Amino acid sequence: MMVTKTERPRPRAEENDVLALPRPYLLFLGDATDAGFAKTAFGLRDWAGDNVVGEFALPEATVTTGLDFLTPREAAERGAKALLIGVANAGGIIPLAWMPTLFEALDAGLDIVSGMHARLTDLPGLGEAAQTAGRRLVDVRCPPAGLRVGTGARRTGRRILTVGTDCALGKKYTALAVARALQKRGVDADFRATGQTGIMISGSGIPIDAVVADFVAGAAEMLSPAAPDGHFDVIEGQGSLFHPAYAPVSLGLLHGSQPDSFIVCHQPGRTHILGNASYSLPSIEEVIARTVALGQLTSPAIRCSGVSLNTSGMDESEALREIEAVSMRLGIPAADPIRGGVAFERLLDACQS
Amino acid sequence: MMVTKTERPRPRAEENDVLALPRPYLLFLGDATDAGFAKTAFGLRDWAGDNVVGEFALPEATVTTGLDFLTPREAAERGAKALLIGVANAGGIIPLAWMPTLFEALDAGLDIVSGMHARLTDLPGLGEAAQTAGRRLVDVRCPPAGLRVGTGARRTGRRILTVGTDCALGKKYTALAVARALQKRGVDADFRATGQTGIMISGSGIPIDAVVADFVAGAAEMLSPAAPDGHFDVIEGQGSLFHPAYAPVSLGLLHGSQPDSFIVCHQPGRTHILGNASYSLPSIEEVIARTVALGQLTSPAIRCSGVSLNTSGMDESEALREIEAVSMRLGIPAADPIRGGVAFERLLDACQS
Repeated sequence: MMVTKTERPRPRAEENDVLALPRPYLLFLGDATDAGFAKTAFGLRDWAGDNVVGEFALPEATVTTGLDFLTPREAAERGAKALLIGVANAGGIIPLAWMPTLFEALDAGLDIVSGMHARLTDLPGLGEAAQTAGRRLVDVRCPPAGLRVGTGARRTGRRILTVGTDCALGKKYTALAVARALQKRGVDADFRATGQTGIMISGSGIPIDAVVADFVAGAAEMLSPAAPDGHFDVIEGQGSLFHPAYAPVSLGLLHGSQPDSFIVCHQPGRTHILGNASYSLPSIEEVIARTVALGQLTSPAIRCSGVSLNTSGMDESEALREIEAVSMRLGIPAADPIRGGVAFERLLDACQS
Repeated sequence: MMVTKTERPRPRAEENDVLALPRPYLLFLGDATDAGFAKTAFGLRDWAGDNVVGEFALPEATVTTGLDFLTPREAAERGAKALLIGVANAGGIIPLAWMPTLFEALDAGLDIVSGMHARLTDLPGLGEAAQTAGRRLVDVRCPPAGLRVGTGARRTGRRILTVGTDCALGKKYTALAVARALQKRGVDADFRATGQTGIMISGSGIPIDAVVADFVAGAAEMLSPAAPDGHFDVIEGQGSLFHPAYAPVSLGLLHGSQPDSFIVCHQPGRTHILGNASYSLPSIEEVIARTVALGQLTSPAIRCSGVSLNTSGMDESEALREIEAVSMRLGIPAADPIRGGVAFERLLDACQS
């Protein structure tokens, strides 16, 4: 079935405040033979299963998500709206071998979603083919047009931001887990994505680290706009206020998000900033104090709800001891959202209070 | 005289860490009838007089800098290397009426330098004409390619950063005045520009507020690289750590600049953030405390050298009273660099100590 332009209105993401992705997806695994390169596909399977109809791969591929194998045309018949490139490769380029699949997807009526460094529109012939087919090429690394400068004006609704002692230790997963758990409690809650994987999972967001510095706070304001009183936005944090390169991203996100409360994410045992042995990790206490001091500019009553510990490297009893010890030391809830349990329920209570 | 491509090697700014502008300039005033729109031209006359050979304007113009009136060809004969658009207009566009002058400049062997929002390369035919003539079109608002992420690695040389209680109150002028005065004292000092006017004045720099958030600290590191022990970089600050929109720019500049000391710039009487009446101005004391707290991440011994007061709205005796009062209150030097005097010499002593 050829889906034609008139059958569904094309969302005009370029006029929106945030990227809005066409869903559900068909996951494309390319010619991947190393599961490590297919992290995006696995993340989508695990966190956005309702928005994935299946996978497609080239004959050379050995990696699989275990989902139904569908051609682009079969996927379109099952309701897919886009082929999502769920695999990376060294260099972030899109190999020639993948091109026939991309053209086939457009022909089948699918948009294409990519988070790779190479722009889809730079690929020879793809832009023209998309235009002819009336389809979109969505580069998730590109911020939407029309970003505005932050105003710092107070707004309604509740907002929770995940912050961290470092990069890459669970800020996205924590925000996803908290948003889902609040929804299960019947709370009107949204996950707000600020990185490319989060955006693909939630279907919308702003890649905040690709925004020009002057507009970071404004982008965060647009990402979590004024909302009704009972509504919660759970915002995916980025970087760390103690990171010698990425602190500006974290600060703009903090100022623009105007959070009522924040959760500090930490990985027990990490002693230095990832990839930079000259910089020691700050303590959780230091992160709380600095986040409050700086966050008060736009959110005068900002407070810490608790701590999210990434205990993936520990066994169950070791993890529970660590969680208990951190909670006792700081006098606030601590939990590993992936492990859940009573500790996580207490963290959620603190977020809602 | 037609300056041909072989007569001077073209600087390859696109391969450099910072923008490097062709100088000296011919200032172009367009058809300006309002001196307020020619601020850039006046700033260049006042701060970069050695690098300006004259001015050129259309017959409709009534504004003048008082410099010699030269056609592009006459300017080239006097050694000019570029026509610099020294005038703005509402909307930041380049009117059709200016185009013949731009083509004439290229034909006379001049590059073109612009800080307007409209890109020179987007003007019909100008890119091709520049390529044919072997000339450069330099958009000062565009950051150079090849920016890297910050490392936070300690580097040699001394660095002074100007910070502020707000935007637009003298951070550029203070940095310029301090760099010049240190040079007069025989110190090996450079002004490092981070905004478009500063870049035009000094002939090089990085427009830091146009840099993607992830790269702001890295850009600041590249702008003020490791230097010999006796060398001082005096870095133009941007925004304020207490600004709800621009604090990320200020923080990245602080972390990347790794300053040994900083000067707080303030305008007495200003009570609220420019253009945002909901935000009170922080006190100078608060700015000092926060700059030290955050700056220590990359510059452990960071300290405040003193305060630069913009007393342009005061008469002489009022200004001197204010300068004295602030210096007494804080126990550190305070001065208005534009007024100079003993107070300014004390501020310079503190910078050098």
